[in-house]
Amino acid sequence: MAHQSGIPLGVRFRILADTPQDSAAQVVADTVLGDYRDLETLRRFAAGCDVVTFDHEHVPTEHLRALQAEGVVVRPGPDALVNAQDKGVMRAKLDSIGVPCPRHRLVADPADVTAFADEGTGYPVVLKTVRGGYDGKGVWVVDDEAQAAAPFLAGVPVLAEEKVDFVRELAANVVRSPSGQAVAYPVVESVQENGVCAEVTAPAPDLDPALAAEAQGLALRIAGELDITGHLAVELFQTRDGRILVNELAMRPHNSGHWSIDGAVTSQFENHLRAVLDLPLGDPRPRARWTVMVNVLGGDYPDMYHAFLHCMARDPGLRIHMYGKDVKPGRKVGHVTVFGDDLEDVRERARHAAAYLRGTITE
Amino acid sequence: MAHQSGIPLGVRFRILADTPQDSAAQVVADTVLGDYRDLETLRRFAAGCDVVTFDHEHVPTEHLRALQAEGVVVRPGPDALVNAQDKGVMRAKLDSIGVPCPRHRLVADPADVTAFADEGTGYPVVLKTVRGGYDGKGVWVVDDEAQAAAPFLAGVPVLAEEKVDFVRELAANVVRSPSGQAVAYPVVESVQENGVCAEVTAPAPDLDPALAAEAQGLALRIAGELDITGHLAVELFQTRDGRILVNELAMRPHNSGHWSIDGAVTSQFENHLRAVLDLPLGDPRPRARWTVMVNVLGGDYPDMYHAFLHCMARDPGLRIHMYGKDVKPGRKVGHVTVFGDDLEDVRERARHAAAYLRGTITE
Repeated sequence: MAHQSGIPLGVRFRILADTPQDSAAQVVADTVLGDYRDLETLRRFAAGCDVVTFDHEHVPTEHLRALQAEGVVVRPGPDALVNAQDKGVMRAKLDSIGVPCPRHRLVADPADVTAFADEGTGYPVVLKTVRGGYDGKGVWVVDDEAQAAAPFLAGVPVLAEEKVDFVRELAANVVRSPSGQAVAYPVVESVQENGVCAEVTAPAPDLDPALAAEAQGLALRIAGELDITGHLAVELFQTRDGRILVNELAMRPHNSGHWSIDGAVTSQFENHLRAVLDLPLGDPRPRARWTVMVNVLGGDYPDMYHAFLHCMARDPGLRIHMYGKDVKPGRKVGHVTVFGDDLEDVRERARHAAAYLRGTITE
Repeated sequence: MAHQSGIPLGVRFRILADTPQDSAAQVVADTVLGDYRDLETLRRFAAGCDVVTFDHEHVPTEHLRALQAEGVVVRPGPDALVNAQDKGVMRAKLDSIGVPCPRHRLVADPADVTAFADEGTGYPVVLKTVRGGYDGKGVWVVDDEAQAAAPFLAGVPVLAEEKVDFVRELAANVVRSPSGQAVAYPVVESVQENGVCAEVTAPAPDLDPALAAEAQGLALRIAGELDITGHLAVELFQTRDGRILVNELAMRPHNSGHWSIDGAVTSQFENHLRAVLDLPLGDPRPRARWTVMVNVLGGDYPDMYHAFLHCMARDPGLRIHMYGKDVKPGRKVGHVTVFGDDLEDVRERARHAAAYLRGTITE
């Protein structure tokens, strides 16, 4: 998706991919195969690149520091990115700048989790490994000390967080350039299923404009205080008592911003590229009253051609985005977007298409 | 641009390019280098392709017939495409189905041009080589028999046409699938400078709805009668006395449809791909009241980076599309698009950006 948005800007991509089957490797002319955890591979890859950026957070921080020390332009830089890589670092940083977060602290063992629970409102407690989590992996909601044992098995530091009583999840997406220019997308509502983003509505329906402005301001402040270059997604809980708390940060184009490809004047991907290239940012405003994105998860049918026929014939306004991934049950293999004036109509159409493509409905 | 629109559909491209510097070769992973006039090259290229289609009309018709006879799926097929390759064939075909065209006939020599002039309203006369023309090349407007000599030098048959007294040029763009489904984009106004498309406004301002419907109907009828698969651009003259006459046909995504990338629900590129793959077509309706596209021609400055900075900073809503071509004076190197409610504002912004990128203005 970043490659698509880079083509019209004349931005030429070199991508580092694990295998030739990776989504980006299928469509980008200049593909280097290799392991992003290997510094020599990263050095060879970066040679000749004007700027290096990311579509995930898993490149080791110390390798990025080494590249930066050798003169490679890394955006966002490792000092910013570490806050999206390490949840312990992120929570400490957000605390230090006064950003509201769920109650949290690092915990040493299951007994310490019980102590953390007792300091607040008891079990259930949310446990997260500080590194390596993704789409619900590395996150546990535990009801007692016995259940709290599992997260410690990996030997990675574990963060305990209160289980927030939220009414919904929101995301505030902003993009910031090295010169400090920043744009804020409308705050969106994000629906998770089994820890995986399922559906995003832009803008978030029935959101108090003051709370929306607070969320955008918070995201802009985090981007500035952490000196972030590029796209920042701030995933938020909207609590029952009308507050917002920061759940997670992502410093790259994010699933909560995929709606912007079809729904905003400038997509998150294009603005991320403009930012990392220090070009002026594009208009983040929505083009339609409502835009709904629903992720397409893999189902039982590896061949989606016939599903395409049905979905395209049923709804000529449907925007389909497939990622070229092998279909596996539950795997994100694409998304669909619908925009329009009537939220219920837009939602129904997007949900129907995603369900049909997955194969959970057949009419 | 077709590659961009194919990525979300999961359509993987193999392209045949003259050189690695060709626009598409810079961004498409599967690029074959070779000469499109060589049948063996075409055979090797087509092996393993589900469908072969085009971004220009210059592949020899006989080679396409050979490929088709060997089982290659060529869309549009050579029997349709020849009408976009050979202006003599095209005029004869349009005459046979009663489509209004400028008065015309094949001419043998300069004296025959004078005879053609005398049969109508005299000189000036428009002369065109029946094959090989592009962006004003292969077209002469001649004032007398002496000037009429030049077009015959190439040894290609020459078509004479009346010089139409037109008030403006329009384009009716439609897309048709092998199953016969078709969609019509709004009729656009096209402004040519020195035989090259300079600016397109969608929809054409102040166009009588009856004439717009007639133009769309004409284009749909041509697509059907000629059994065209894919995008058809029908370039039209709007005459002073309120008629429309067909100027040219193009059977591929066309400059008069570039506005649709940012301006329509489904772009001409995506619908062309859907058509040649026999997938249901997407909604061709405009997303904004007005969309204006202005071509960016090469100027004196080979490096456009600083022009980017200015244009993006001045107008965050500007959509820039650069083609990765070396900048040469007068060469089409990209286009810009602006959409909105106010036609004058939209036009001024698009024209300003194109002029600034070319370097003809500096503020």
